[in-house]
Amino acid sequence: MSARPRHALYAQSGGVTAVINVSAQAVIETARAHPGHFARLYAGRNGILGVLDEDLIDTGAESAGAIAALRHTPGGAFGSCRYKLKGLDQHRSEYERLIAVLRAHDIGTFFYNGGGDSADTCLKVAQIGRELGYPLQAIHIPKTMDNDLPLTDCCPGFGSVAKYSAVSIREAGLDVASMAASSTQVFILEVMGRHAGWTAAAGGLAATRAGEAPQLILFPEIVFDEDRFLAAVEASVKRWGYCAIVASEGLRDAENRFLSEAGGSDAFGHAQLGGLAPLLAQRIKQRLGRKCHYAVADYLMRAARHIASATDVEQAYAVGRAAVEQAMAGASGVMVTIERLADSPYRWTTGTAPLEQVANVEKKMPRDFITADGFHITEACRRYLLPLIAGEDYPPYADGLPLHTELANTAVPRQLPPRRL
Amino acid sequence: MSARPRHALYAQSGGVTAVINVSAQAVIETARAHPGHFARLYAGRNGILGVLDEDLIDTGAESAGAIAALRHTPGGAFGSCRYKLKGLDQHRSEYERLIAVLRAHDIGTFFYNGGGDSADTCLKVAQIGRELGYPLQAIHIPKTMDNDLPLTDCCPGFGSVAKYSAVSIREAGLDVASMAASSTQVFILEVMGRHAGWTAAAGGLAATRAGEAPQLILFPEIVFDEDRFLAAVEASVKRWGYCAIVASEGLRDAENRFLSEAGGSDAFGHAQLGGLAPLLAQRIKQRLGRKCHYAVADYLMRAARHIASATDVEQAYAVGRAAVEQAMAGASGVMVTIERLADSPYRWTTGTAPLEQVANVEKKMPRDFITADGFHITEACRRYLLPLIAGEDYPPYADGLPLHTELANTAVPRQLPPRRL
Repeated sequence: MSARPRHALYAQSGGVTAVINVSAQAVIETARAHPGHFARLYAGRNGILGVLDEDLIDTGAESAGAIAALRHTPGGAFGSCRYKLKGLDQHRSEYERLIAVLRAHDIGTFFYNGGGDSADTCLKVAQIGRELGYPLQAIHIPKTMDNDLPLTDCCPGFGSVAKYSAVSIREAGLDVASMAASSTQVFILEVMGRHAGWTAAAGGLAATRAGEAPQLILFPEIVFDEDRFLAAVEASVKRWGYCAIVASEGLRDAENRFLSEAGGSDAFGHAQLGGLAPLLAQRIKQRLGRKCHYAVADYLMRAARHIASATDVEQAYAVGRAAVEQAMAGASGVMVTIERLADSPYRWTTGTAPLEQVANVEKKMPRDFITADGFHITEACRRYLLPLIAGEDYPPYADGLPLHTELANTAVPRQLPPRRL
Repeated sequence: MSARPRHALYAQSGGVTAVINVSAQAVIETARAHPGHFARLYAGRNGILGVLDEDLIDTGAESAGAIAALRHTPGGAFGSCRYKLKGLDQHRSEYERLIAVLRAHDIGTFFYNGGGDSADTCLKVAQIGRELGYPLQAIHIPKTMDNDLPLTDCCPGFGSVAKYSAVSIREAGLDVASMAASSTQVFILEVMGRHAGWTAAAGGLAATRAGEAPQLILFPEIVFDEDRFLAAVEASVKRWGYCAIVASEGLRDAENRFLSEAGGSDAFGHAQLGGLAPLLAQRIKQRLGRKCHYAVADYLMRAARHIASATDVEQAYAVGRAAVEQAMAGASGVMVTIERLADSPYRWTTGTAPLEQVANVEKKMPRDFITADGFHITEACRRYLLPLIAGEDYPPYADGLPLHTELANTAVPRQLPPRRL
């Protein structure tokens, strides 16, 4: 620890979640509790873009009450971004710019709160700092609704999405069951999750016994076979009167193509999805002649702070606090992890993993979490998922609506000339 | 009142809601409290279809605890149906069959819990009872997420959908706002509501000041003009950085065609909708070149008991109780209504309206509830809507999921030969 405290920087990255601001709250509150270690805590406006543009926010200008209210504020309070830094060789000047900004503001610790792509960025920032002889600790705080980061038992943001998925299909299932005699018999809930089926799997928690919704789950890990799928839908309608389906947007065909490409792609080169449910509904109407409704959860599920998992909220706070504690202990180039100690009663703690082993690795569903027929979750999966949706953590309400905080997001005066683009 | 108590029948009709079972609970609990007036309370399995098929349920077989738990059970506990009885002239035999079933079970009171189509059925059952000299009281209990029944200040089921709409667009708006610098700038929430814009209007409650989500609302009452819409989207992105939109599935073009017909139609001859949001998103991407996400709420919104409005739950109970009290007072051919006494603080009571004035009348949004530009709600609309979403009424949870009841739904022995179809 240096005698004179340096500053720290926190930035949010990638798709936001219902609880990423809880991690922000934890970082800010923990750093504030140690003024001898961290002089000021800055935040990047719109994530790493704000660092590149030297558009920094002074979190010290916010009241303790405003920071505490981040706990129940979905979205990213400082703005997030989808912007993937290229390889060091391809775009060395961008990394040099990052270090220049950090240096201009005497920032000694970089907290990056994001998913797999962000872990890669965090790692590279740590590396370039070393190369350029700039003393910097870079610590990654996990966040992704997709739950696809390796080396952590789960990812903050996922538990709440999982709860949304399970609650929604249980409620919609009861609706469809009561309509099925003369109207809708098939219902599809399309959930986000590009490559891993975790968010779809979580819907399976709603079915505690045979016949309960969802009767079918479509995972990106299982190649979509239209005939098998339609046969399973028909069998469910015959047996249970209806069929409630949770379908992952990332569903692929035998040629590994997304079933429904929207045509565009995002800043990371990922295909932008969204049209799966209409496609499945059309097939069900055309080939089975059954009335079908669908919902597309999209951002509603990852923003649904109103139905957040209490476990998720607690873990989002814990990883933020642990990141600051790790920094104080001298760590760098690591991601904070969640380590499961027991399933039931659920016990967990935080740990760390080297960023080299985290960056750009996607954790898919283990095959033994999916039933042999490929349409549901196993008991092993249920044991894994169940603690993650446990507990409710309701936001405060006024006039019938959940309250959130809006930070002042006061800019830190610039020290450098504008970035050359 | 007859010396010997006769039986009563309760049936659910049309699309179910998060709180229709609360009305069922109220009817059952209130009838049970007056055994001198109602011998048994039966329910139609799958609504009026169960009456036609003489497939009746004895609610007396359910425990008090099971009935109490209807309060937090979305969907229709006895099954609902989409089945519209034809006119008396066209299908007199169907009405005669209804009366035959009621007569076979000595049912003196018919409680029908539904929307506008059901009010029409309830009225006709009352009429044919009179014609055939069968002593029957027919009482309609309002229920519709669409809020389109006349002569009642609002409809049970709507307040909870309204709350879902407002909560969802507030949360998703915070998400999009934080992504807009480098990713999604436009978000569309498609909500149910075929002909009236109430459910879309409710989303507007989330915007308490200029710039808050939703920036735009698309009402079925306002003819869709693509150029004006896209210009408004672009203006919002330029001014506020993003644009969050609530769009009613019932949006129509200048030729009065639904913007997105799914091709099918339901049992009432209504076109089945659902493809609006993908269409709007496509236009935004193609013509504005802006990244757009969409969610389709569909059944999730009307089943979302987890975020029900406490006001709605209270009113759903009140109309059920009032229906039974009206029956005991000798009423027939009426719908129970909700009468607003004051906006703020909100005060209301129940009343009645003649079914002749209710049946097949749709209450659209008054034009002065929609801003002059057609894209948002006025203060008058806000005053009307705000009390309806007030308060939270959370269901109990176990293992992270909301609990619901499943009734035994014990069949009443049949007295008649099967219906000739």
